Amino acid sequence: MTTIGIIGAGQLGQMLGIAGQKMGLKFIFLDPSDNPPAAVAGPVLQYPFDSEEGLVELVAKSDIVTYEFENVAVAAIEKIAATTTVYPPAEALRHAQDRLVEKTLFTTLGIPVAEFRAVDSEEDLRAACTDVGLPLILKTRRLGYDGKGQLIVRDEADIGSAFAELGGSDLIAEQWIEFDREVSAIAARNASGDVVFYPLTENSHRQGILSVSKAPAQAERLTETANHYLTSLLTHLNYVGVLALELFVTGDRLVANEIAPRVHNSGHWTIEGAATSQFENHLRAILDMPLGDTNAQGYSCMINLIGEMPGPAVELQADNCFVHDYGKEPRPGRKLGHVTVVADTSPALEDQLKRLGKLLII
Amino acid sequence: MTTIGIIGAGQLGQMLGIAGQKMGLKFIFLDPSDNPPAAVAGPVLQYPFDSEEGLVELVAKSDIVTYEFENVAVAAIEKIAATTTVYPPAEALRHAQDRLVEKTLFTTLGIPVAEFRAVDSEEDLRAACTDVGLPLILKTRRLGYDGKGQLIVRDEADIGSAFAELGGSDLIAEQWIEFDREVSAIAARNASGDVVFYPLTENSHRQGILSVSKAPAQAERLTETANHYLTSLLTHLNYVGVLALELFVTGDRLVANEIAPRVHNSGHWTIEGAATSQFENHLRAILDMPLGDTNAQGYSCMINLIGEMPGPAVELQADNCFVHDYGKEPRPGRKLGHVTVVADTSPALEDQLKRLGKLLII
Repeated sequence: MTTIGIIGAGQLGQMLGIAGQKMGLKFIFLDPSDNPPAAVAGPVLQYPFDSEEGLVELVAKSDIVTYEFENVAVAAIEKIAATTTVYPPAEALRHAQDRLVEKTLFTTLGIPVAEFRAVDSEEDLRAACTDVGLPLILKTRRLGYDGKGQLIVRDEADIGSAFAELGGSDLIAEQWIEFDREVSAIAARNASGDVVFYPLTENSHRQGILSVSKAPAQAERLTETANHYLTSLLTHLNYVGVLALELFVTGDRLVANEIAPRVHNSGHWTIEGAATSQFENHLRAILDMPLGDTNAQGYSCMINLIGEMPGPAVELQADNCFVHDYGKEPRPGRKLGHVTVVADTSPALEDQLKRLGKLLII
Repeated sequence: MTTIGIIGAGQLGQMLGIAGQKMGLKFIFLDPSDNPPAAVAGPVLQYPFDSEEGLVELVAKSDIVTYEFENVAVAAIEKIAATTTVYPPAEALRHAQDRLVEKTLFTTLGIPVAEFRAVDSEEDLRAACTDVGLPLILKTRRLGYDGKGQLIVRDEADIGSAFAELGGSDLIAEQWIEFDREVSAIAARNASGDVVFYPLTENSHRQGILSVSKAPAQAERLTETANHYLTSLLTHLNYVGVLALELFVTGDRLVANEIAPRVHNSGHWTIEGAATSQFENHLRAILDMPLGDTNAQGYSCMINLIGEMPGPAVELQADNCFVHDYGKEPRPGRKLGHVTVVADTSPALEDQLKRLGKLLII
């Protein structure tokens, strides 16, 4: 009986656990929260994420360790990797945690990226405005998520207040990209080096939080390029597990935004919409099993349920509509669940979304 | 937060639990076993199935009760139905538990069935041999499963020994059906009366235990008839939940064998092979939600793993092959898990099965 230790017990841990239970896998989680979503899938060691005591216990009770979010301390992962198998590798985590390191990696691998500059002072920011042009986005290099820790600098008069607001952290200034749309590319690579790619997913954000993902994205000509970028990243990082790459589409060009070394919100549609879910493939990858078929089954749309669950969730649950409830307390801006709608054709999907629109703000 | 109480915590309870977790449902089980498979999906009240104390506690801790096997005492279900909602209804259970009552129902509803006679004495058996002809199958009316509690009477000389072996129970003698193949028809009906039908599944048994199920069965002309029979049963029983009907195919004719008032082994392929699994649809049905799309996604074959898990389970897990491990101790004749193979075409499925044949006896 194989036990998977997962750092983090949120909805991603929950969906990993649910995917793995049917494979006969056992799970144990490390998370400081009371009643986290993943508790349905196994015991939770209630410690802070960086608790040495908690990590030691997790390692002792697991055959292999993975994580569901990228703000685990790299040092902690490196330490436990000395005595147990941890995937994805710490090196991937290190790149994902720091936007400057991440964007430098993109550049190194020849993956197009918005122009960027490290910003450690108001002078740096002023120089960046000249170098990369205005408007630009000023971001903390670390610990940003869902649009937090970033703001737009529209003209030079904003420089002082922008630096005052975010300064104190290490920062990065990024060129503003006028993109047509955003897509994500998700792949899984197992320890033997086999790689599978999901179809590209098109994402819409609202207030910085992923709101809607549709797959397959109408972007066939971009798929080969995106998968080429993913391959470079996977190979360079000697990656094992699911990796998500967020990209901007500008005309026929893809510009890399960021990577997530884990299962990703934009891949939730794969539970019902692909032959094998991203969660099952992450588990197959870290256990070095043959990876599952990633083909889309029809056309899917995933809608995040944020802040509050829609009242008549029972009405949402239609013949081709699958409601997921993470079991979390409602709170503004919090991802509480998601709905995936699957249809045979793209127009049928749009029709169903229109119908759902009455029940759900999308 | 809705809690589903399930009587029985075997693999069917486990798969119901796994299906429901993603919908935000909670589960509690009643089962006398140590570490039953469904324990991964919720707490298990460890009492005998007919324990009044256990049932009272289950009802107290559940919003709605269902069951995963049909040998629950009808009286127990009727009793708890007085204070809580229990689906499928006790009436369905009563018919499923007694082959004589079940076959009489088929006859009442005009569903073709093998000729049968109640047998309460050696004289009854002798008369049955004359009436329905030889060979015939002598079965206990109650508590038979997986081919247990039945034997073949080939000629009149067998009558004495056959009655000696099974007599003491109420018995039924059934005409021997020379069938071409066996199929099962699975439907779900919710409390509002909506009904969905899965494609017919073709089943092969080995030593009385289901061994292989393929879906959709190549039996399009029979589907309408099978669904008509299911509709009669569902309506007559005012049924809520998933109902399985096992049928023999003889030429162009269907002959009913038995019903199972629960999710069914021959429907396991629906987890990966249908848009909505039988497990999710059972939960949607008992919660009176809109039912999910039952269409097949490609061609599926489910192979039971009986007695022992194949050694290199990791090799079985291929791109279109999904291994389920119920987490049970190996024991001869015990269902320990199953594998579902899904392919785009029927020939591709056969090719894959040939490949698997080397790893797995099928």
